[in-house]
Amino acid sequence: MEWLSNTLKVPDVALQSAALERQMQLTKPPGSLGRLEDVAVRLSAMQGSEKPSAEKINITIFAADHGVVAAGVSAFPQEVTVQMVANFSAGGAAISVLAKTLGASLQVVDVGTVTDPGTMPGVISRRAGHGTGNLHKQDAMTSEQLAIAMNAGREAVLQAKEMAADLFIGGDMGIGNTTPAAAIACALLGADPVDLAGPGTGLDAEGVSHKAQVLQQALQRYEGLESEPLKVLRCLGGFEIAALTGAYISCAQQGLPVLVDGYITTAAALVAVKLQPGVKDWLIFSHRSAEPGHKAMLEALDAEPLLDMGMRLGEGSGAATAVPMLRVACDLHNGMATFADAGVAEG
Amino acid sequence: MEWLSNTLKVPDVALQSAALERQMQLTKPPGSLGRLEDVAVRLSAMQGSEKPSAEKINITIFAADHGVVAAGVSAFPQEVTVQMVANFSAGGAAISVLAKTLGASLQVVDVGTVTDPGTMPGVISRRAGHGTGNLHKQDAMTSEQLAIAMNAGREAVLQAKEMAADLFIGGDMGIGNTTPAAAIACALLGADPVDLAGPGTGLDAEGVSHKAQVLQQALQRYEGLESEPLKVLRCLGGFEIAALTGAYISCAQQGLPVLVDGYITTAAALVAVKLQPGVKDWLIFSHRSAEPGHKAMLEALDAEPLLDMGMRLGEGSGAATAVPMLRVACDLHNGMATFADAGVAEG
Repeated sequence: MEWLSNTLKVPDVALQSAALERQMQLTKPPGSLGRLEDVAVRLSAMQGSEKPSAEKINITIFAADHGVVAAGVSAFPQEVTVQMVANFSAGGAAISVLAKTLGASLQVVDVGTVTDPGTMPGVISRRAGHGTGNLHKQDAMTSEQLAIAMNAGREAVLQAKEMAADLFIGGDMGIGNTTPAAAIACALLGADPVDLAGPGTGLDAEGVSHKAQVLQQALQRYEGLESEPLKVLRCLGGFEIAALTGAYISCAQQGLPVLVDGYITTAAALVAVKLQPGVKDWLIFSHRSAEPGHKAMLEALDAEPLLDMGMRLGEGSGAATAVPMLRVACDLHNGMATFADAGVAEG
Repeated sequence: MEWLSNTLKVPDVALQSAALERQMQLTKPPGSLGRLEDVAVRLSAMQGSEKPSAEKINITIFAADHGVVAAGVSAFPQEVTVQMVANFSAGGAAISVLAKTLGASLQVVDVGTVTDPGTMPGVISRRAGHGTGNLHKQDAMTSEQLAIAMNAGREAVLQAKEMAADLFIGGDMGIGNTTPAAAIACALLGADPVDLAGPGTGLDAEGVSHKAQVLQQALQRYEGLESEPLKVLRCLGGFEIAALTGAYISCAQQGLPVLVDGYITTAAALVAVKLQPGVKDWLIFSHRSAEPGHKAMLEALDAEPLLDMGMRLGEGSGAATAVPMLRVACDLHNGMATFADAGVAEG
């Protein structure tokens, strides 16, 4: 995984200034389009184009299982991961519907479900194992498994780049994966599991408390991991989280803007930014998850998501829901008249 | 204006229950689509359909001028109102771009700018006067003018209904109109102008303070108007606000869902709901304006908008920006597989 330390691209500062200047000339009070202005300006700088675009979207969902489900941390049974992979493939899941609505390309990468789903349309097999080890008791994965998963993320981004995508969305599917995501956040932020464990797919208060306890016990095995993001990812992460981390770093290396989804993907973004701080310049945060611990991760990343719709589904669904905001931002930036064009007096 | 007291339609309770039940069967943890679930359920009940839709959108912008601009309450000069009507007509304004992106029909109704813009494509003339009277010193309009403006709103909705629109969006254009909107809110909510006056298109702190003083002086001429919404609208409102009030009441009478925009339109919604509380059932609030006083009005209406993007442009632009959220909500509701369909285990 030597590629992990390859140089990152940097958004174009001259285009950023030009886009800001254009926003001031459009027929509206300066700043009155709020976040839509920021998004257009950032996309212009990231895409190196005077005409930012969010038309061609690549959505890649990474699916995997988690040994820690044995510790009773999820409201849904583990077989749902593979069942949902089949649902993605058949077009019935939320992200399937969203991808169709957006005209986005959607692919699923199996990075290690418990049972091999076999051949399904739109599903690529890059299996690092039959689910991770139970992080409650042991390291989640080996270095070899970590590399397989991260390389799978990189491969997806190289394909998206080849397709000339305007934007990359990574999604997650993995019953139990709010537990490794919380574990990563606790280890990297020095936070207490009580503050970062949440209901996930639907635990009650007792379940959340148990989950916090499992996390506390897992974290006791490690000390001073704040400065070792890759070890955190290997010991406490999941295959899909590792793949997402690899994907985000690759996006920054390729100069491809990322629309980050919710809780799980933000944990991956946190690892990626800890490994290479410049990754942050390529991330747009789509939505604030209803999972309470998302807040702490967003704050650590100094990220203010576009939407706050009470969503907590994963699959990239929050990011896909925010795509129309990016499209609207680009259309306004590219299509509005200037004060001079329209003969409108300035304030 | 006898039509003002006509009976309102009521959203279909049976369809609401069926839609809620369907949301529980879709392949996702219950509630995990957050606000998107609520929106789909409400639209289903409002449209009386198992398949809610936000495809066919009617956007009507009501434009008018305000005598109170003479009191120095706006950062932009008054001629901008008519210049922006021309910009709407020519397709260069934010709402023009948004309407095109959405495939929405867009019309502008001139309910009384200072100078008559004359004939322009897409602009209908329903002028109640050459701008309102200066509410700082006198009643904003006569009863006859109020009726012309409110009827213009009703007419636009009857046309939208005839087009079989799924959704009505009203927009506003009128330099100075955050002042009448704040005046209405203060009068109906018994609030202090200091709490509801904001920068509008871009006043500095001194300008905001002056605006609050103008509002305070205007409100001193009236007493106990909380229970007289129509008088508040006539004495302190604007032609476009009156048209929007008429439009919202008509939507509730016709059973046409409304997507409310920001500060100005919420003032109109407040008057409409005070006149006929059942109007509320037909309103979806699109976004939280950056204009600080919006908060108080939303709280009074017990409304939680979908978006909070720091927008403060008017023209219906916030509502138009939220349309894709409604479309996504409908697509998910109508298109996702159920647990039974997909053979996915429930939690």
